[in-house]
Amino acid sequence: MKALVYRGPGDIQLEEMPKPVLCQTTDAVVRILKTTICGSDIHILKGDLPMVAAGRILGHEGIGEIEETGAGVSLFRQGDRVVISCITACAKCDNCRRGMPSHCESGGWILGNTIDGTQAEFVRIPFADTSLYHIPENADDDAMVMLSDILPTGYECGVLNGGVKPGDTVAIVGAGPVGLAALLTTQFFAAAKIIVIDIDDNRLEVAKQFGATEVINSKYGKAVEKIMAITAGQGVDVAIEAVGMVATFGLCQEIVGAGGHIANIGVHGASVTLHLEKLWSQNITITTQLVDAVTTPLLLKTIMAGKLQPKRLITHHFAINDILKAYDTFRNAGREHALKVILTNE
Amino acid sequence: MKALVYRGPGDIQLEEMPKPVLCQTTDAVVRILKTTICGSDIHILKGDLPMVAAGRILGHEGIGEIEETGAGVSLFRQGDRVVISCITACAKCDNCRRGMPSHCESGGWILGNTIDGTQAEFVRIPFADTSLYHIPENADDDAMVMLSDILPTGYECGVLNGGVKPGDTVAIVGAGPVGLAALLTTQFFAAAKIIVIDIDDNRLEVAKQFGATEVINSKYGKAVEKIMAITAGQGVDVAIEAVGMVATFGLCQEIVGAGGHIANIGVHGASVTLHLEKLWSQNITITTQLVDAVTTPLLLKTIMAGKLQPKRLITHHFAINDILKAYDTFRNAGREHALKVILTNE
Amino acid sequence: MKALVYRGPGDIQLEEMPKPVLCQTTDAVVRILKTTICGSDIHILKGDLPMVAAGRILGHEGIGEIEETGAGVSLFRQGDRVVISCITACAKCDNCRRGMPSHCESGGWILGNTIDGTQAEFVRIPFADTSLYHIPENADDDAMVMLSDILPTGYECGVLNGGVKPGDTVAIVGAGPVGLAALLTTQFFAAAKIIVIDIDDNRLEVAKQFGATEVINSKYGKAVEKIMAITAGQGVDVAIEAVGMVATFGLCQEIVGAGGHIANIGVHGASVTLHLEKLWSQNITITTQLVDAVTTPLLLKTIMAGKLQPKRLITHHFAINDILKAYDTFRNAGREHALKVILTNE
Amino acid sequence: MKALVYRGPGDIQLEEMPKPVLCQTTDAVVRILKTTICGSDIHILKGDLPMVAAGRILGHEGIGEIEETGAGVSLFRQGDRVVISCITACAKCDNCRRGMPSHCESGGWILGNTIDGTQAEFVRIPFADTSLYHIPENADDDAMVMLSDILPTGYECGVLNGGVKPGDTVAIVGAGPVGLAALLTTQFFAAAKIIVIDIDDNRLEVAKQFGATEVINSKYGKAVEKIMAITAGQGVDVAIEAVGMVATFGLCQEIVGAGGHIANIGVHGASVTLHLEKLWSQNITITTQLVDAVTTPLLLKTIMAGKLQPKRLITHHFAINDILKAYDTFRNAGREHALKVILTNE
Repeated sequence: MKALVYRGPGDIQLEEMPKPVLCQTTDAVVRILKTTICGSDIHILKGDLPMVAAGRILGHEGIGEIEETGAGVSLFRQGDRVVISCITACAKCDNCRRGMPSHCESGGWILGNTIDGTQAEFVRIPFADTSLYHIPENADDDAMVMLSDILPTGYECGVLNGGVKPGDTVAIVGAGPVGLAALLTTQFFAAAKIIVIDIDDNRLEVAKQFGATEVINSKYGKAVEKIMAITAGQGVDVAIEAVGMVATFGLCQEIVGAGGHIANIGVHGASVTLHLEKLWSQNITITTQLVDAVTTPLLLKTIMAGKLQPKRLITHHFAINDILKAYDTFRNAGREHALKVILTNE
Repeated sequence: MKALVYRGPGDIQLEEMPKPVLCQTTDAVVRILKTTICGSDIHILKGDLPMVAAGRILGHEGIGEIEETGAGVSLFRQGDRVVISCITACAKCDNCRRGMPSHCESGGWILGNTIDGTQAEFVRIPFADTSLYHIPENADDDAMVMLSDILPTGYECGVLNGGVKPGDTVAIVGAGPVGLAALLTTQFFAAAKIIVIDIDDNRLEVAKQFGATEVINSKYGKAVEKIMAITAGQGVDVAIEAVGMVATFGLCQEIVGAGGHIANIGVHGASVTLHLEKLWSQNITITTQLVDAVTTPLLLKTIMAGKLQPKRLITHHFAINDILKAYDTFRNAGREHALKVILTNE
Repeated sequence: MKALVYRGPGDIQLEEMPKPVLCQTTDAVVRILKTTICGSDIHILKGDLPMVAAGRILGHEGIGEIEETGAGVSLFRQGDRVVISCITACAKCDNCRRGMPSHCESGGWILGNTIDGTQAEFVRIPFADTSLYHIPENADDDAMVMLSDILPTGYECGVLNGGVKPGDTVAIVGAGPVGLAALLTTQFFAAAKIIVIDIDDNRLEVAKQFGATEVINSKYGKAVEKIMAITAGQGVDVAIEAVGMVATFGLCQEIVGAGGHIANIGVHGASVTLHLEKLWSQNITITTQLVDAVTTPLLLKTIMAGKLQPKRLITHHFAINDILKAYDTFRNAGREHALKVILTNE
Repeated sequence: MKALVYRGPGDIQLEEMPKPVLCQTTDAVVRILKTTICGSDIHILKGDLPMVAAGRILGHEGIGEIEETGAGVSLFRQGDRVVISCITACAKCDNCRRGMPSHCESGGWILGNTIDGTQAEFVRIPFADTSLYHIPENADDDAMVMLSDILPTGYECGVLNGGVKPGDTVAIVGAGPVGLAALLTTQFFAAAKIIVIDIDDNRLEVAKQFGATEVINSKYGKAVEKIMAITAGQGVDVAIEAVGMVATFGLCQEIVGAGGHIANIGVHGASVTLHLEKLWSQNITITTQLVDAVTTPLLLKTIMAGKLQPKRLITHHFAINDILKAYDTFRNAGREHALKVILTNE
């Protein structure tokens, strides 16, 4: 089969690879219908995640059709159409049982990381019963792809951890795909003001269309002043960090009000300075999370009910054979006005 | 001043009454701009609330302008425009301090009940600093009247107690004003399905316009069957009782799913049968609440942010001098297609 | 093998039955080391649970040693010593995944109910990986038996649902084994006063030794008055119903204070009267629950840390061959001063 | 009257000062019976809190007797014996009403900071009704002094923010008075293991007597290794920072397990390094808080019920006239084996 293979920093190839086979009785092999590229794939490509070995098929998102199941799989059978979760959950270990499958002792984020992933014609999914979700009839396929990772990430790590509640003022720092996913799901909770901060005017324009009540381009400076003006000097109730840089986490510290939350989503490559000399007395809560994807069923229900339109996150479509072109587009997201790209197996 | 006075069961009169004066340093006297009639006023009129003495001025909702304040009032001064909360809160007693001012030791629901109320030209408000709210500039006056009681009641007793969350299926039994307030605020939490049940087709039509995804007229029977069909036999996640009758609370018990909530808002005049022989193993939560109105500031923010349009609850307007006509309209709500009526002092 | 078989209302026999075998790959067969008798076994015997067919081996509690495992069992192997949970959890269905395995679509309370149970030499346990728990070295075997049902039941349905918090006044109605389990675990949360109510002086004496700060024998009447005196007329913060009768649930309604909780544990055979005409305005929360047993790992940790002494619940020991005698003792608990009885396979 | 006056960094004097008088109708003047010295008094003395003006009477803890009340004080009268909270709460402002009086718009921590404090014969208490608490009969006076600050601080900022639950492993970094207050109140929640880390062997010995299950002297290094050994390499569920230094906050980051909490109590004078490059994916919650003291009534109930023995925190007694000697003892806590010192007005 064709697959996108990581050959080392800066080097990915579309190659012919062996079709995966069942290894455990709880495995399923899934024929990929659609997949996409994530920011963390770009991190891998840069060599930032050294646990990813050369020869690895990348990708941890997508939808597909069940090709084959092990004897221990009871909820799915051949032909079923499924969402593949970015988080593989054994459902048995202590971490799974306390609702934290991101740290599953034999799963977690392994697809396209420590085992082969979804940017291919087929993928093997361990613990299929608890790592796949049935696609309802009438569902939009492109929308379903957004359930693999970006929607639960924005919702769990940003919105739920931030404790967004009706009437709140929420700042989302970063209007890339995950920041926009947080923006869409922040609106589940009737926030009064949603301020989106980025350095790309096009993304800010998108944010406005997606429901931001205020947008601020921080490359012109004065972001803190503007937010303080909007909040009458009180700061925001919730600051969602959706970038992963020192400066953006720093901005969150400056704009969060007393009693507020900083919900980190961003993948950080370096430590940051935490201003406890100011914040120790400010009744602040800071959270981090690798997505657990336990809210996937809930998010699926909101999509089917028309409360969430994740297709809005998709800007480009490619055939899987054009995946290198898709990577090029996604890596130049600013120039290409790209958010999520959809890759289709035809 | 003119005031609506309760003279005993079935007997209310618009009479000339003395203008109220400050009694405590924490009192304010408020000139009423607008008021409304509540279902509990009708209960009083029927003689259902014997603690209401003959001679009492009725009414516990409204907006006004501060006429005079006691020396201990620090947050309001003459001329300020305010929302009057139906709950008077001393903010000092144990119950107030644990967030339950409905059971305030020297307040609670006293307006138009154990002290004179708002259906008058002026009203004395005890503990003014913690029982009144500033009306923001640009606010719509009619919308503000809905903050006195009906919105916090629907939101706190129905939606918050019911634990509504994104993706949920919610049934609201009763499409009167308080049921509709619950319907509006249920939408804060991206419920997937909201089923409204009533016996009045007009109110069900209104419910549809207000965001119900399904409506059921229970007078034709089969309400349980229809709800079970909608929920694939699972029952609802949340059943909000907004009527206060044996049959409607019974319906909630029949339709609530395992793990679900029954949030009672209705004022009940009689005991009900609780089917513990069935429910003991169903992991059900049942709540009751006299509104605490502690969410008034939050609700005010959602109104000002355009997330909530309470004016939709208002069907009729009268001058305060026509209050007897307004009572007549409100008591014949079915015939008159009435929800909330606004009474204006001119 | 020898097993206790239900032959119909009033009729149980110790019989020779075939040793169970693996049916599914996720099954384990466990050799029983110790088991016990539960109040619900007595209900079965009375014919109260008609879904229990004649020929069923009873029992849903116990510890044992793994005899054999299916190919899909990964956490246990032959010779492992295990606690058997009364709740069988597939860990895959919607209810399991939302933390409610009591309503597992292919499990729940099935042992000694719809499949053969633990009052035998061997038992087949479906979904072994998520329905058994490893017994730590140094653990006391008798104490471990209490983890099967009674401790999670008292803790989850009583203490957690009741929302017990430091400083609270808690009333526990019923000093049988499950009430006493609630009493032991209520003390996890530093309640200020724990009042135990029963009609058996011996059990009340036990309750005192177990940490009750006040005991009341309600057979002499005046229980409400006494509780109101203890609480300065405020009523209790939490009332735990651990009997399952109309009168005991009624008592809970009379003693719960405004803002309080009624946590029902009792198995009810009949409906009760709910006094909504009084309680609608009292900000009460009523809960029911069939135990989910999701706190078993947590309870195990508290036992191993010496924070909980479940052995105190055990009053009698029998060999499994004397199980009919043990039933007799347990059914005459008052006369025998019996709480939990331990049956040992020798 | 005699009072301890701050004259500038390093300079405190016992001086004759004017007796305070009522300024607002909501004030009370309290005759101090007992007071104590807090770590933040030492910070002031070092010049770390420049908002404290020369001439300020220090102290924000103590018990006393009501001398005089303003017309707006309704819950206290002359002769009442009271605990003085370190947090002055107006109960009216937005922050008070959302349960965060530490950031009260006209109160908060002001005693001995921006207004004169309790290390004197008399003190003026603003918003007396909501900043004082009645002392029950039979209460121990010394124990009551611990309610002013240290108990709510340890409990709210450490234990509640840390989300301690039964069975948890908790590390408390710092065995000074506030760390020990956290240690005492951690035991409200049946934690399985409580590890206390400090560099003072005497304090660790005290920690053991107070309920620590393990103690580690970190001055010999290897604290991280030892904690990882105790937790089987998982790290702790809750790390409570009770020192306020870069190294101690750093230790908390190294020992917290996935899904864990870092609850900061320490007053920090400098920023710290937050290792987001490691923690971003570890599902961590970090909290900070200036105590709100809203749990004072709850803590009082636990003391009166014998669930909490705060007197254990007291090591030294002085007459108020010997306050300079008391400061000397408290500043040399290591040498003097001092925890809290009690100063009595005689």
